[in-house]
Amino acid sequence: MHRRHRARESVITTVSDAGEFGVIARVVAGLETAPSTLIGPGDDAAVVATSDNRVVASTDMLIENRHFRRDWSTAEDVGHKAAARAFSDIAAMGATPTALLVAFGCPGELELSWVDGLVAGLRAECASAEAAVVGGDVTAAETITLALTALGDLGGSAPVTLGGAKVGDTVAVCGRLGWAAAGFAVLGRGFRSPVQVVNAHRRPEPPYFEGQRAAALGATAMTDVSDGLVADLGHVAAASGVRIELRADLLDVPAKLREVGAALNVDPLVWVVTGGDDYALAATFPRGTELPDPWRVVGVVSEGDGVRVDGRRWPQGGHEHFRS
Amino acid sequence: MHRRHRARESVITTVSDAGEFGVIARVVAGLETAPSTLIGPGDDAAVVATSDNRVVASTDMLIENRHFRRDWSTAEDVGHKAAARAFSDIAAMGATPTALLVAFGCPGELELSWVDGLVAGLRAECASAEAAVVGGDVTAAETITLALTALGDLGGSAPVTLGGAKVGDTVAVCGRLGWAAAGFAVLGRGFRSPVQVVNAHRRPEPPYFEGQRAAALGATAMTDVSDGLVADLGHVAAASGVRIELRADLLDVPAKLREVGAALNVDPLVWVVTGGDDYALAATFPRGTELPDPWRVVGVVSEGDGVRVDGRRWPQGGHEHFRS
Repeated sequence: MHRRHRARESVITTVSDAGEFGVIARVVAGLETAPSTLIGPGDDAAVVATSDNRVVASTDMLIENRHFRRDWSTAEDVGHKAAARAFSDIAAMGATPTALLVAFGCPGELELSWVDGLVAGLRAECASAEAAVVGGDVTAAETITLALTALGDLGGSAPVTLGGAKVGDTVAVCGRLGWAAAGFAVLGRGFRSPVQVVNAHRRPEPPYFEGQRAAALGATAMTDVSDGLVADLGHVAAASGVRIELRADLLDVPAKLREVGAALNVDPLVWVVTGGDDYALAATFPRGTELPDPWRVVGVVSEGDGVRVDGRRWPQGGHEHFRS
Repeated sequence: MHRRHRARESVITTVSDAGEFGVIARVVAGLETAPSTLIGPGDDAAVVATSDNRVVASTDMLIENRHFRRDWSTAEDVGHKAAARAFSDIAAMGATPTALLVAFGCPGELELSWVDGLVAGLRAECASAEAAVVGGDVTAAETITLALTALGDLGGSAPVTLGGAKVGDTVAVCGRLGWAAAGFAVLGRGFRSPVQVVNAHRRPEPPYFEGQRAAALGATAMTDVSDGLVADLGHVAAASGVRIELRADLLDVPAKLREVGAALNVDPLVWVVTGGDDYALAATFPRGTELPDPWRVVGVVSEGDGVRVDGRRWPQGGHEHFRS
């Protein structure tokens, strides 16, 4: 009798036990709002305030074992990273995040505790970005699939696009470079430490509010580094019709990355130059712009095309899906 | 030699032949903009104009063999339906669609022609809704997966939520009811006709602009019928703390549905009352509101809870994911 009672209590442990509306209720329960949340989850659509009659919007899809691994990252890590990735695109336009919409697909067998962890991570990252989850969708899927749409506000500033870099501009970055790639390399070889690089892979910390600050400083072009510095600045170079010249001596390689590189027999500069997933911001500014911390100059815009590191084409590009 | 040349020409036929950036280039090529598109696809994020410092946003995930079947619907049909489903949520708030963000995952083996068809369908439906595709994401996935986020504009009106229905209000609908369900039943039994109901399943035609009109007419609550009239009005009843009383004699069953019902031995009223996927709008209005065509009165709001048809609880709810 007692055992039977316990068995009943433990019946609701998976997503299919809870059902679609049970999962939604769980996600929505106690969800924080942001000042811009006019109507949050639970209606046909959300309503979000804008300050200047424009909204910035970006969408990303993440799939288990392609974008994250459950044995490398906790559910909370995945929530943090998914939201960080989405908001990073908003910051890269010179805007600040306001809202997140989360479409979520998973197998019915998935434990509810994983969903709870994911939601906790999404909410915590929203709090860091001063935004809120305002809507979503839940469906059955064979593989855990997330599609996140971030909304943002330009606060009256012009958007900073990929296409505005001018010859003579200064190239600067803000945020970490290479840390997540080093963490990925460590995890890929079966290690779990050093914890600093592993955590950088699990939970990036994009400098959300530096995007709007860069816009105020007069940034001419900007992007977030999701695929790697050379790959992402390559988009700026192409859209602006310029060449980006990076100087390796300005891309200072932190001691921790040198240490990990030595242990794994990898040149850590490779991580700094080609590693994505730290979601740093990279921007161009008119020559002579006084750049406050944490912005650091890494190069200059010149005539030509593509990206060069110390005058040479970097052999490796960023990540491309569908490549075998 | 000649054969070898032909083989080379035909090499780019799948998504992995084109690669991620090839697919994106294909999607973006010649994409129309809407008046509200300030920055469209190709940058870190899109920028969309709002008219009243608010944006309406909703997201949906669609997965092959759960939400659509490639043997029942063409790629173009899937594009039409996915966009229609997304914009229908915008209309249900009393807003008009402005923009669509499309996250797309698929296996590398998928034919590019399918992607082209999907994009053609999305674009055509955007044109019907006077909106535009402004951004997206492409990734590899085992199953074709779409996550669509629709944005919309309230044009200065208050949003029409689920929670505003008052006792004594008139309940009215606009758009088709039961047609997609009849089409689904026909396809499920291996038939391909009558084409009117099959096409209704393949390409719903939501009355996008009637949402804003309903708001102007003073609608107190509104939703779109995606899960079935009883299920969706159930959300209005719950959020408003009222009962919705429908009258079967006002839910006129079109001759075509009666004909199909007779052929399949199904009471066509079941399709009208429980069928989703036509994306009709259902709203409540203050008693005495003069409702223009194509709005038609189907019931009244009373004290109590839930939805009744001719005074009785309807046995069947809407679709729920994760149910076996």
